[in-house]
Amino acid sequence: MMKDVYIIGVHATPVGKYIDTGFRELVRTAYVGALNDASLENGDDIDFCYFSNFMADFHGQNMCRGNNICIPLINDGLMKRHMPIFNLENGCASASAAVHSAWKDVLSGQSEVSVAIGAEKMYHPDKTNAETLAHMGLAEPCEGREDWHAMLASAAEKIGVEFGFEQGRSPAMDYYALLAKEHMHKYGTTAEQIAHAAAKNHQNSLHNPRSQYQFDLSVEDILNDRLVCDPLTRSMCAPIGDGAAAVILCSADYLKSLPAEVQQRALKIRASAMGGGVYHRQHQDDRVVAESARRAYKMAALTAKDIDLAEIHDATSFAEIHLVEDLQFCAPGEGGPFAASGATRIDGEVAVNASGGLVARGHPIGATGIMMLNELAIQLRGEAGANQVANARIGLQENGGGLIGMDSAICSVMILEANR
Amino acid sequence: MMKDVYIIGVHATPVGKYIDTGFRELVRTAYVGALNDASLENGDDIDFCYFSNFMADFHGQNMCRGNNICIPLINDGLMKRHMPIFNLENGCASASAAVHSAWKDVLSGQSEVSVAIGAEKMYHPDKTNAETLAHMGLAEPCEGREDWHAMLASAAEKIGVEFGFEQGRSPAMDYYALLAKEHMHKYGTTAEQIAHAAAKNHQNSLHNPRSQYQFDLSVEDILNDRLVCDPLTRSMCAPIGDGAAAVILCSADYLKSLPAEVQQRALKIRASAMGGGVYHRQHQDDRVVAESARRAYKMAALTAKDIDLAEIHDATSFAEIHLVEDLQFCAPGEGGPFAASGATRIDGEVAVNASGGLVARGHPIGATGIMMLNELAIQLRGEAGANQVANARIGLQENGGGLIGMDSAICSVMILEANR
Repeated sequence: MMKDVYIIGVHATPVGKYIDTGFRELVRTAYVGALNDASLENGDDIDFCYFSNFMADFHGQNMCRGNNICIPLINDGLMKRHMPIFNLENGCASASAAVHSAWKDVLSGQSEVSVAIGAEKMYHPDKTNAETLAHMGLAEPCEGREDWHAMLASAAEKIGVEFGFEQGRSPAMDYYALLAKEHMHKYGTTAEQIAHAAAKNHQNSLHNPRSQYQFDLSVEDILNDRLVCDPLTRSMCAPIGDGAAAVILCSADYLKSLPAEVQQRALKIRASAMGGGVYHRQHQDDRVVAESARRAYKMAALTAKDIDLAEIHDATSFAEIHLVEDLQFCAPGEGGPFAASGATRIDGEVAVNASGGLVARGHPIGATGIMMLNELAIQLRGEAGANQVANARIGLQENGGGLIGMDSAICSVMILEANR
Repeated sequence: MMKDVYIIGVHATPVGKYIDTGFRELVRTAYVGALNDASLENGDDIDFCYFSNFMADFHGQNMCRGNNICIPLINDGLMKRHMPIFNLENGCASASAAVHSAWKDVLSGQSEVSVAIGAEKMYHPDKTNAETLAHMGLAEPCEGREDWHAMLASAAEKIGVEFGFEQGRSPAMDYYALLAKEHMHKYGTTAEQIAHAAAKNHQNSLHNPRSQYQFDLSVEDILNDRLVCDPLTRSMCAPIGDGAAAVILCSADYLKSLPAEVQQRALKIRASAMGGGVYHRQHQDDRVVAESARRAYKMAALTAKDIDLAEIHDATSFAEIHLVEDLQFCAPGEGGPFAASGATRIDGEVAVNASGGLVARGHPIGATGIMMLNELAIQLRGEAGANQVANARIGLQENGGGLIGMDSAICSVMILEANR
């Protein structure tokens, strides 16, 4: 019998370009916000800290990142002096790895309260966005990954689609574009359907004060935007961005010790499933998201039908098409028509990325997984204002990561329930 | 009541210069060695993998390190296909962060068997050792750590000792040298006493087939070796090195399902304490190691007197002097005479670094914490040959990390018990 673990405090900075704001200040905003959200005056009850980040080395911080970044919080009495801090990195799913670890921490009985903090600064005062992408390392050869060009070309040949890879460009978007072409080839999915997912997210984003982009883009605007890699245009792709987020988890016993109002605003973690390793991208039931989702639904004793809203990893809007299938919101191959039908709108069958998602809310990599939980929490507490999903009680988070090879990746699926 | 967690398999490569051996091959050796040690044919029962590494980005692998490195193990059926792999980095204590996470994993009930793998390659075919040290990032400025020179100079002034910092040299050894000067100033510790700790470790190392260095060095040889930073000579400092290690942890229920021989060779984890944050380096009872050790002894319901042998973090031989005090093997300030007395030899009061320690066995950063557990396991099973500590039943690991500032660090203290 699994113990109940609750989220009692969560906070995220708006996503943006924080050239003059350091990691320490971003993390302070997120962490203090999460303390306030939990009505905690300080972090004295927090036993462990899990810190996620992907590319602080871009800013010279390549060792003990969270440990260094949290020193001022400790010196100011906001975090306990002897705090063990663990640094986690799992690509774009880094923040979920931190939350999953904090969750297990409480489950293990070694902690009553743990915190997960994620932070990223992808903009650099002296470097270009192209340098950011290059630094992400996907274009760099390393053991076992000599040539993305060859990998993508060979995959395209197998699928039977034309594919032009540009050297010097980060292969992440090319990879998604190839998956999109495969889906279009196999199921008749159209660029317009992909644009529908993007347009919905850009429109949702207009009312989200934490969003990086607040442009009202139509399906046509999106299709006519600059091409990044056919069929993906710029507004179908997540931008680079800076930001931080923090989430505080606790045991049922600890929750009982808190004021009634905090208890009512708490979210129960019904499931946390981490997937990874090697899978068969072309087999619907063996994709990492599909497999992780099945485990999450089983752990939560719920089905896809029970999900009121989902924050999912639309690193590109094609991914959203793919993911709604893997999460069982629609049948395999039907992600395109599902998006175009309006089923994923705030007032649809299942509200997908009511926040604006990665393409519009933003994607500061090491913080994204916790930002998703923040968006779910705001909805499940009924505090989402103009974007509120009616009667939201069960929310799902899906955070993907790790462009490791064509058939390997990382995935987190968490399910939260309102405690009201 | 804390559940019992056991180590059933552990293995480490010898430490060395593996220019032509990639991460994947080193990790395979360590992982397959650990499977064999546990009499497991494959990794099908292992639920989660924690991967520790400090500087694979030196070799172009700066994202999802363990995930990429383990792909061949999955493809060969040695690791389960959908393995969630978490990448952990905590400076020189990275491997202990991975083991601690695997331990909590089993405690949480989410896993019956978990594995922690650590790997490091500090030598590079095209780069100098100075470039390795520079890449470690200590010399690079980052937020909150603008100038090590000023930090060390100001600390030296407060202590009242002369200290010459050389720009361009990694500050890690300078930091230890300053701590040594402080100890000498305060307690009358001598360079000769520090050399005693180094000589013991170099002599222990002669009989350890996993050691990087096998030189028979006397106290005089060590004092006469090239000065790195006064009072530390080269043979008092851990070298750079490559290697990998893996350890498999399991629940009591799982252990019962294994052959009697595996059960007898298992080690019970009596304690795993992680320390971190900010402390008062100059206050004996508020140092990170002292604080972590107190928690570990309490968790294990043991005292320092119960420890038969210890593998501890002698990144420099001065550290060993300091650590035996913090671990309560001797009184504060008496680490020097304690080392010189022979109390820490294999046949002494408590055998410290019977393996040769970091200065001689070696210190491939991301693997070190697990290598220490491997050395303890070999001793606690009575398989250490010429270096065997008589009647070894309780072993302690201390793995430090994170030269973050003058008063912040990371520390792991684990206590293992023989199951024979």
